[in-house]
Amino acid sequence: MTEHELIRELAEKNAAKIVMLVADGLGGLPLEPHGRTELETARTPHLDALAARGTSGLSVPVLPGITPGSGPGHLGLFGYDPLAFKIGRGALEATGIGFELGPHDVAARGNFCTLDSAGLITDRRAGRIPSEESFRVVERLQGVRIPGVETFVKPVKEHRFVVVFRGPGLDGGVADTDPQATGVPPLDPQPHTPAAARTAEVAKEFVRQARAILADEKKASGLVLRGFAGKPRLPSYLDLYGLRAAAIAVYPMYKGLARLVGMTLVGDAHTLDEQIAALETCWNDYDFFFLHFKYTDSTGEDGAFEQKVKRIEELDAALPRIERLRPDVLIVTGDHSTPSKLQSHSWHPVPTLLVADTCRPDGLDAFSERACLRGGLGQFPAKHLMLLAMAHALKFGKYGA
Amino acid sequence: MTEHELIRELAEKNAAKIVMLVADGLGGLPLEPHGRTELETARTPHLDALAARGTSGLSVPVLPGITPGSGPGHLGLFGYDPLAFKIGRGALEATGIGFELGPHDVAARGNFCTLDSAGLITDRRAGRIPSEESFRVVERLQGVRIPGVETFVKPVKEHRFVVVFRGPGLDGGVADTDPQATGVPPLDPQPHTPAAARTAEVAKEFVRQARAILADEKKASGLVLRGFAGKPRLPSYLDLYGLRAAAIAVYPMYKGLARLVGMTLVGDAHTLDEQIAALETCWNDYDFFFLHFKYTDSTGEDGAFEQKVKRIEELDAALPRIERLRPDVLIVTGDHSTPSKLQSHSWHPVPTLLVADTCRPDGLDAFSERACLRGGLGQFPAKHLMLLAMAHALKFGKYGA
Repeated sequence: MTEHELIRELAEKNAAKIVMLVADGLGGLPLEPHGRTELETARTPHLDALAARGTSGLSVPVLPGITPGSGPGHLGLFGYDPLAFKIGRGALEATGIGFELGPHDVAARGNFCTLDSAGLITDRRAGRIPSEESFRVVERLQGVRIPGVETFVKPVKEHRFVVVFRGPGLDGGVADTDPQATGVPPLDPQPHTPAAARTAEVAKEFVRQARAILADEKKASGLVLRGFAGKPRLPSYLDLYGLRAAAIAVYPMYKGLARLVGMTLVGDAHTLDEQIAALETCWNDYDFFFLHFKYTDSTGEDGAFEQKVKRIEELDAALPRIERLRPDVLIVTGDHSTPSKLQSHSWHPVPTLLVADTCRPDGLDAFSERACLRGGLGQFPAKHLMLLAMAHALKFGKYGA
Repeated sequence: MTEHELIRELAEKNAAKIVMLVADGLGGLPLEPHGRTELETARTPHLDALAARGTSGLSVPVLPGITPGSGPGHLGLFGYDPLAFKIGRGALEATGIGFELGPHDVAARGNFCTLDSAGLITDRRAGRIPSEESFRVVERLQGVRIPGVETFVKPVKEHRFVVVFRGPGLDGGVADTDPQATGVPPLDPQPHTPAAARTAEVAKEFVRQARAILADEKKASGLVLRGFAGKPRLPSYLDLYGLRAAAIAVYPMYKGLARLVGMTLVGDAHTLDEQIAALETCWNDYDFFFLHFKYTDSTGEDGAFEQKVKRIEELDAALPRIERLRPDVLIVTGDHSTPSKLQSHSWHPVPTLLVADTCRPDGLDAFSERACLRGGLGQFPAKHLMLLAMAHALKFGKYGA
């Protein structure tokens, strides 16, 4: 019996409400040996009080030592084994710009490149043309027409864009056309499998028409396509857990990830205050609420230790307003660590806190990496967090008699 | 996606160097209730200082409660699931005496036995003839000639020897010929599968010729063969991790195990000092260094608690010389526990210490079984140790975007 089969068998509906507050990149490192992490440095009276009431632990996003991107990091928190469920690069890029993939879509990442008169690549990134110029070029590509297929071309940033083909019988199994070198032409789209033969033909026709349109461009005269992928097949929150789930996020990537598991996007918030206002507004309409807080990650990526500390304190200050809604289960966690010291995502386990009346207290009185080491949840795979959320909300029946 | 597929996908080369110091049988037990283990008794200022800088934990060699031999114990540390990758007994015995198995070899363990005039076994161990006598008998067996097959017969100890058949189309699927009883004749070599039919014939011919040669021996007049096995198919360290790996071991078994995963044997050391000298000499030529220290196991096997304590102190005293090389990741662990109290390998988790600038400190200031229980690595499967080593050396890319 797989874990998902077990979840479907045991899930029961009740009125309990679960809030999962994801502080992106929450975990950190001290800058100096014997120093404190960002979370240990921050003044977090509300998190500490919650830790005293709840149960803490450390979540391992994928496996020990494995650093996840945002996709696998969130899939784990949502209860989908990130090694079994993968989001292809094209699909993630489309998701990240807020494009809602349909079941018959295949998305690819595109890079504009510069071609010489013989069609050989002279610059694989088209001189990193500025976003505005790229937007103009992408606009020209709206003229591509492929019979039987709807084509969407969307700008991302600088020389990067996304193309989505929509139509019956498409498949993501097409090889990258980027030769990863200059002085050679872009590769033809080749199918990995017979099922992708038609998609490769569609991509070829797209490239043919695009090349004709771009022939007079100085820099963006060609393009390469990478990471062809369909919409990942993920069971929805409603299917799997029987939960009506709402997502309250500011950035398109996290909205997209939530939508991939069937969450409803709620509100149009740009600040944490607005996010919590959205939570309050939709409180009666959902069972599960995913709140995404980006800035613990972005400050970590910037190596801005003090700024990350401040962002943690900002999050802490917002907690009483969430608590006033009296969630039956309140979880505070992260999708991965982003230590300022490393200026990147890392593999270190993520401090995690679960508060519910059904918690077994673990005697902690602070929320930090070091405290969580002695927490009642121990170190656990992130994909098990939703099992704990459901259990503490009394939404699981007994397994076996 | 399997763990090895993940490793291959994420592994990146950089200049970082990893040292894995394996103190064989490191973990122990107190002799008395409320007493201290060998490691807790030993004075280990350097290990304690490293514990304060690094992250500690307890490694579970195979599964909770499972006591490994040297083969599975080391496979786990090297990152090969010891339940998925098995080294057949014949292959392990050949490896243990320093015989380098080729891809077309099949090895078996041999026991000399005593046969009566009717060919029935009267002593299954040939009176445990002394090694010197066994060496003489093995020498006589060099006369065996089998068409199309190269045959190697090597002495082990007392009545035990190894035979290796080398040639195309051989297969380890041959049943033991030891009837596990006296008063009956040795069994004929029988193939388990059609693929092993020829190997069974080869073994039969070996036995026929050997019986003729040994007919005039008083004690070693017959033989039985057990544990037929080919060379295990293990991806190499270079294939899997992209690591140029060196092994610095004194005993043939550990040299052999390292060679099975593609490590290069370095130096011809007989003492720990000589091992570290070899490490210093080859420091620039490799990315990964496996140092094997045998005596924490052999003293444990002897039930010599105080001697094991001394050996741990000897190891501790050698650490500064290793530290002077400034390894980016330094790991101290064991392949299993060997408590003096039990005079044997045991299943108890193994104290493990990982030191790197990328460690998250766990607030410990000592290295011991009890301290490791509160360490940041928690209790983890030994097969995940290499994931942590690669991560802390920043040799893994991000999983997913």
